[in-house]
Amino acid sequence: MPRKSSPGKTLIPQCHAVILAGGSGTRLWPLSRNMLPKQLLALDGEDTLLQQTVKRVLGAFDPECVWVVTNEEHVFEVRNQVQSVDKRLLDQVISEPLARNTLPATLLAVEQISKRLPEGGLTAVFPSDHLIRDEVTLRRNLQKAGETAAKGYFVTMGVEASQPETGYGYVSLGRELDVGVYECAGFIEKPDYSMAKRYHRDGGHLWNSGIFVFGCKDFLKAVAVHQPELWAWWLAREDAPMIDNYGRIADISIDYGIAERIDNIAVVRAEFDWEDLGSWEAMYRLGKRDKDGNVIQGDVMAVDCRNSLLISRGGRLAAVGLQNMIMVQTRDATLACPMPHVQRVREIVDMLRAEGSKLAECHPKVDRPWGNYVVLEEDHNYKIKRIAVHPGARLSLQMHHHRSEHWVVVSGTAEVEIDGVESVLTENQSVDIPQASQHRLANPGKVLLEIIEIQSGPYLEEDDIVRFDDIYGRAKSPK
Amino acid sequence: MPRKSSPGKTLIPQCHAVILAGGSGTRLWPLSRNMLPKQLLALDGEDTLLQQTVKRVLGAFDPECVWVVTNEEHVFEVRNQVQSVDKRLLDQVISEPLARNTLPATLLAVEQISKRLPEGGLTAVFPSDHLIRDEVTLRRNLQKAGETAAKGYFVTMGVEASQPETGYGYVSLGRELDVGVYECAGFIEKPDYSMAKRYHRDGGHLWNSGIFVFGCKDFLKAVAVHQPELWAWWLAREDAPMIDNYGRIADISIDYGIAERIDNIAVVRAEFDWEDLGSWEAMYRLGKRDKDGNVIQGDVMAVDCRNSLLISRGGRLAAVGLQNMIMVQTRDATLACPMPHVQRVREIVDMLRAEGSKLAECHPKVDRPWGNYVVLEEDHNYKIKRIAVHPGARLSLQMHHHRSEHWVVVSGTAEVEIDGVESVLTENQSVDIPQASQHRLANPGKVLLEIIEIQSGPYLEEDDIVRFDDIYGRAKSPK
Repeated sequence: MPRKSSPGKTLIPQCHAVILAGGSGTRLWPLSRNMLPKQLLALDGEDTLLQQTVKRVLGAFDPECVWVVTNEEHVFEVRNQVQSVDKRLLDQVISEPLARNTLPATLLAVEQISKRLPEGGLTAVFPSDHLIRDEVTLRRNLQKAGETAAKGYFVTMGVEASQPETGYGYVSLGRELDVGVYECAGFIEKPDYSMAKRYHRDGGHLWNSGIFVFGCKDFLKAVAVHQPELWAWWLAREDAPMIDNYGRIADISIDYGIAERIDNIAVVRAEFDWEDLGSWEAMYRLGKRDKDGNVIQGDVMAVDCRNSLLISRGGRLAAVGLQNMIMVQTRDATLACPMPHVQRVREIVDMLRAEGSKLAECHPKVDRPWGNYVVLEEDHNYKIKRIAVHPGARLSLQMHHHRSEHWVVVSGTAEVEIDGVESVLTENQSVDIPQASQHRLANPGKVLLEIIEIQSGPYLEEDDIVRFDDIYGRAKSPK
Repeated sequence: MPRKSSPGKTLIPQCHAVILAGGSGTRLWPLSRNMLPKQLLALDGEDTLLQQTVKRVLGAFDPECVWVVTNEEHVFEVRNQVQSVDKRLLDQVISEPLARNTLPATLLAVEQISKRLPEGGLTAVFPSDHLIRDEVTLRRNLQKAGETAAKGYFVTMGVEASQPETGYGYVSLGRELDVGVYECAGFIEKPDYSMAKRYHRDGGHLWNSGIFVFGCKDFLKAVAVHQPELWAWWLAREDAPMIDNYGRIADISIDYGIAERIDNIAVVRAEFDWEDLGSWEAMYRLGKRDKDGNVIQGDVMAVDCRNSLLISRGGRLAAVGLQNMIMVQTRDATLACPMPHVQRVREIVDMLRAEGSKLAECHPKVDRPWGNYVVLEEDHNYKIKRIAVHPGARLSLQMHHHRSEHWVVVSGTAEVEIDGVESVLTENQSVDIPQASQHRLANPGKVLLEIIEIQSGPYLEEDDIVRFDDIYGRAKSPK
């Protein structure tokens, strides 16, 4: 979805946009993991859901009015992803010390926005993990939401339900205030199936899209009235480092913390397409189907398969005679599940967590501020990684107590420092990093540096690292 | 199936056994590949089918009377496998220059047997890729077959069909010669389903087990009469190196080349269990089922699955709600197929061959006379292998024109020679092998040597190798 122009820069006067990119989730396991939630995945093309959201929002807002909130765990990857869309967004990424749901995240962003708009203005909040394709309509509906919010309403956007859905929240419509604008008669968090069916049949209920537009001052006032503890933390925030107190903030959503508690809330009927992508079934429903009704991505051979979702991101997947199946394969795990059982992926993830498996936690590819690495192979006494370092990037000066490392450059140029001695390695060259030596890797070149790292030793976890100096501010914390 | 004693050493007087281990096949893809046929796989325990066959045959024959025939492609792996059962069999492995079906392979073995039994004797032929568990009954039936062969019959063993089967050959029973011994009224190669059903209903037909017992002189005479071209090659075999002419020998089976053409053929009714393991469905049928009817091997999570075969030999396989499914996962490929479609695995393999994929040809783990290697990762400019070298083993002195190599010892001790300079490396130590240098790797120790090899360069195929010296006689041929 590449797009250059930003036609709607004056869409909503005095309004900033906040993209919430701190969520975690594993409903799309094995592609999504705790450390790689779905907004950071490219599910239906080259752009991740976050990048698609950023581009969509930049169609309606100037870059300096767009904020992206995430947390420490994902901040480097979020920064990498948003800067590849627009470098100007790098300064607009706000990082929470901990993941804390949508209300505290929004409060952090509203603080920044209030500094830019001291006379008061509006904030539009967007989840980063939803799919919206009809951007023209989105902008038109946003404009209506902005006008409504400017009148003092706290606006939520409601989406016409295309099927009964027990996985979404609903808003109940009251009196019509304007064309397509209603008083909100209530919020319903994930109804049961019979209720969802009744809403679908009788109308008067819309899916809660998670897109809100409100006045910053109205928002702050609502927090003060309805979330006094959060407000107290907010007032005292400059007296102590944020991290010391952040853990005490309630893990609370905008919906539950404010929207359900205030009177002046309005619903704008969204006319654009909207999808939560909350399951592999949704991925299938939205994907591009071939003549047999299959949605296929990656290295897949399908013989006589029908209406199936077949994805491989590692190894060949050969499927014969499948119907209505979901198969998703990565380097370290494969999911096989008939479409009607799709919600039970959760059970798999719960089992993985219960056994303490890394398969729920980390993807074999891990993003870092300087690039990324992929664990190619692990055994009890060695681990092999492919490490990619961005041009100009530099890893921390570090030391490991329990392992030696061996680096082979397979593309690009590496600058290596070992116990104060610097050298430059090019393709095919290698170097040994003895146990307990201080070492550092950098890419002084203009192209990606790729090295293969073989770690050997009796203890190979990521926490055997002592950092002495780090340009990304991570000294003495895990890589 | 570990077993020490050999109770039946005088089971059949003056009789040698021949195990045919040269077959190739991919019906159990992705576990079996052209280079790793099913007799070399451990499918239902620690022993491979070949090793199980060897143990079974050693229950009835002295080791010096047991011969194993294979071909150049598989000879090192066959030697490794049989010597792990009984070192004395190492001298009894016969290697064809090319794979050429069962008749020429048997002829090579009968030549050796005739030298040992110049006055004449018997030969019992066993396929190496079938499963037989009831060894006591096998020995009893073999005794009967030996007695019948000693009377001048060419004996085949027929198995009671437990279901109509279109994948097997049948023998048609004629007049009863003795209890459980019949004249053979004909061979039927893979009947259609209606015929197979009729055989099953009406009786009088048995599955052709591929186990034959015959007099060596009778066999040679039958070859002379019915396969004059093969006989002519046989007579002239010492005038030219075998390899020069071997390609001209007809690719012909014992059944088709002799058994179907002679008159004095008898069928001994086999009372033991017998299974060809010709498909994943057979693997499922014979496997140990859990309470839900699943046969599970390896790193598999099954939630609410029924009557399925779930095998992983690489990565986690998470299956939810599967019924009657076959899923087999290796490091580089996954097969997913409902049980009734099992025969269509052939289509997958045909497609792989048509695209020239290595996935039909090689398993990521490749056996060599000195040990084995596993390709962990490949890209256009590098390849990573884990190499295991047996204690005392030594790779060839070799050179690569187009790649450099980097070795890291992860366990054991390595003796490395580079351009005439020798060194010894222990765990965690590494060495670079520059492009075009002559190098050699050996394991001087008493435990397995494991190294990680990173190859880098523009051309990384196995045929970029020049061998100068090889203790396994492979100088100047592919590794």
